[in-house]
Order: sequence, then C-alpha cells, then structure tokens
Amino acid sequence: MVSGFREGVVCPQGLIAHGRGEAFDYLLGERTNPFAVKAIEASACALLTAERPVISVNGNVAALCAASVVQLSSLCGARLEANLFYRTQERMKAVKKALFAAGASEVLGGEEDEAIIPELFSERRRVSREGIYSADVVLVPLEDGDRTTALKRMGKKVIAIDLNPLSVTARAADITIVDNVVRAVPALCAAVKRLRLKERQALERILAEYDNERVLGEALEAISSRLNRLARGELHG
Amino acid sequence: MVSGFREGVVCPQGLIAHGRGEAFDYLLGERTNPFAVKAIEASACALLTAERPVISVNGNVAALCAASVVQLSSLCGARLEANLFYRTQERMKAVKKALFAAGASEVLGGEEDEAIIPELFSERRRVSREGIYSADVVLVPLEDGDRTTALKRMGKKVIAIDLNPLSVTARAADITIVDNVVRAVPALCAAVKRLRLKERQALERILAEYDNERVLGEALEAISSRLNRLARGELHG
Repeated sequence: MVSGFREGVVCPQGLIAHGRGEAFDYLLGERTNPFAVKAIEASACALLTAERPVISVNGNVAALCAASVVQLSSLCGARLEANLFYRTQERMKAVKKALFAAGASEVLGGEEDEAIIPELFSERRRVSREGIYSADVVLVPLEDGDRTTALKRMGKKVIAIDLNPLSVTARAADITIVDNVVRAVPALCAAVKRLRLKERQALERILAEYDNERVLGEALEAISSRLNRLARGELHG
Repeated sequence: MVSGFREGVVCPQGLIAHGRGEAFDYLLGERTNPFAVKAIEASACALLTAERPVISVNGNVAALCAASVVQLSSLCGARLEANLFYRTQERMKAVKKALFAAGASEVLGGEEDEAIIPELFSERRRVSREGIYSADVVLVPLEDGDRTTALKRMGKKVIAIDLNPLSVTARAADITIVDNVVRAVPALCAAVKRLRLKERQALERILAEYDNERVLGEALEAISSRLNRLARGELHG
C-alpha cells in the first residue's frame, strides 16, 4: 500500500498507476536488473554534466521515495519541482510538505513565476520558469508519455524511471531506467556519489556509449524469459 | 478510472489491484482471447450444472460490472453475495446498494446468519451460511489467492476471473478466465444463454474435457509472444 494516500499526496489515479507498476515489477523479478544498472549509470552522468538539472516530483514519487529524491537533488545539484497531473492547491501543498519533511530546502512549483509547456493539456503543463521550463536535463520518475514527449520537443534531455519498457515514456525518454523508484533512486544516488569524482570527459564517454533502445530490448527479453520460466514452474511466484 | 471510488465502493487497495490488472490486460491485447473463450464456456457449464451456485462480489466487481453480474445471476440462478477483504459496514452497504441499483432482487452478505471460512484471517472469512458457505460452485471475479485456496479446501468448485495467469488464484481455481471482468462477465452471460438449452450430459462433457492448466499455459504463451512482437515494433502500444 502506498503511504501518503491519507495525507492527500497520492490521488486515486496514482494508486491505479502504482498497481500497473507492481505488475511489471513482478514480471521483472522485483530487482534492479543489469539493464537498469546501465541506465542508472548513464543517468548519473547526465545529471552530473547538466547545466540546470531538475527532478520533477509527483504524488507517487513523494509518497514512495521523498527522502531519496531529496538526497539525489543535493548530491547532483538538481532542483526539485512539484508537478502534478491532477493538480489542486491541496495536493501541491501535500507533495511539497512531504519533500520538506524529507529534508528539502527548496521545492519549486505552484507559487513562483510559471510558464506553459506547449502541447500539454492537463494542469501539468504549468511549470516553474526557473525550474523545468529552463532545465536542460529533467528526471521524471513515474511520468506519462504525453509529458515526456512534450519535454523532448522542447529540446530537453529526459531521464525516465518506468517499470513498463513498452510505455510511451519509456520509448520517448533519452534514458529509461526500467526499475522500481524505491530501488532506482537510491541506486542513482550511489552512482552519482561514485561518478562525481570522475572527470567530465569520462562521464561524457559513458553517456555517448549508452544505447537506450538496446536497454529497452534487454528489459523486454528479461520479462519474456522470466514469464517462460514461471510458466515452466522453475520459479516461485 | 474505476467509477464507484467516490461512492465508497472501491477501496485504495482495490485501485492498486485494478492497476495490476490493467498491466496484464495490456499484455493480453485488451481482448477476450481464445483461451478465455474456452474457460468462459466451461464456466457457463459449471454454473448451469451447479446445485447452489453463488457469485461473490467485491468492491471492484460492483464498480466495474454490477449490471452484468446481476444479469448473470438471474440467467443461471446464482445468488449474489457481497464479500469484502476490507470490510466495513459502510462499504458493505455501498456494494449492496450498487447491486440493487443494477437490478438485483437479493444480495447476501453481512446481515443474515454468518459462518466462518477456515484458514482465512481477514474479514472476508465471514460468509453467508446460505450463500458461499453452502455453495457447490462459487464464481469469484477479482479475488485473491488465499481465499480461492480456502474455498477449494472446503470442497467447492471455484471459477475465477483473473488477468494474471500466474497468480495464486489463477493456479488454484478449477476454471480460470484470464480476461477483464468487463468483457468476461457479459461473455459469460452470452455463453449461459446459449448453453442452457443443451442437455445436462452435453454440459458435463464440455466440463470434463476442460483443462485449466493448458488454458493457463496458452495465456502465458500469448503474453510472451505479444511482448516479443511489441519489442520488434510489429504492434502499436
């Protein structure tokens, strides 16, 4: 059960999305697979070499891993921005409150100067001018496809965390971490800690060698082979 | 989005379960596949040849397909019983209200004489003595594995509708319809209409020939092959 439901952080649609994720996580063996490790390493390089990295936080992210997104934000100097599909003042407040409670010193979104992302029709298109709007790299854990595509069209490098390797977000992002946020964000913190000691050139080389399509293909193969083994009774549940 | 959330029919856990189902439905191509058609036909035979068939209704079933479970109940003479994992008086009332609003003339559960199903520890173990407790065939759309297993141990024939062919429920049930309830229950109504004109012997023959393990294997193969085709880009989304 997602905590944060009673505090108004997670909306009903967020719970359904969480369930969809659970099903894919089960098919992935509920672990950080090798293809996710590759994507996490590339993501750390993208965040460390960014000029204006931003982490976009929605209700589920705030409920599931507030502490680790706050840690990631301070480790790589990325700003946090609350951005909700089903936006109400109360939910914006609840999400920001969860991030401040987890140690955030600043959370953008909702109060300062806002800009509109073209081609998006939900309230999510309202973003902070100094945050997502002017970011070069945006980490969108748990995001939907329309938004990822709109951010791409604005020329941003998008890092997504998505348990469904076939989703529009997974396919549209530059780097897709096919893993559960509760494992992926702490792993991303660890990768940033390790890689920030390296020179910029080394980070850029890792990024240049990264192939998202191949990573998504490996995720699909992993699910397919796990299904076959489950069907043959070689694994338990 | 599941309707019935605001009326207190669906609980937060029900929304997460709905999301898990959505993910499997997507992998199944969001249609009633041939393996589901076989299971639906066998289920119709089991309901038509039962002495005391009962349809167990939880919050998600009431929200998603109240009208068709009521229709199925009258077509095959099965009694409806509200049975909730997260049982409160308010939720029992809301589920029953949804069924009465959909045309039910009787809904068991919560008020009359109750019995306890052995080996179940949630409030769901409280069942109607004249309903599930004394049934020979129980249809449990959207149920969890513990309950299906407990019903099996009580000697009941269990028909499950479950989008995850690997779930404990799917494996424990006598007949597993791997399909979305919103398609499966109307299809089951149609099968009952068609088959109730046949002689009992013909129905028993269909039941004897039905092989649930083979059906579950076919469902897994379908998911696996769809994943591979999606990965190769032969299908859209």
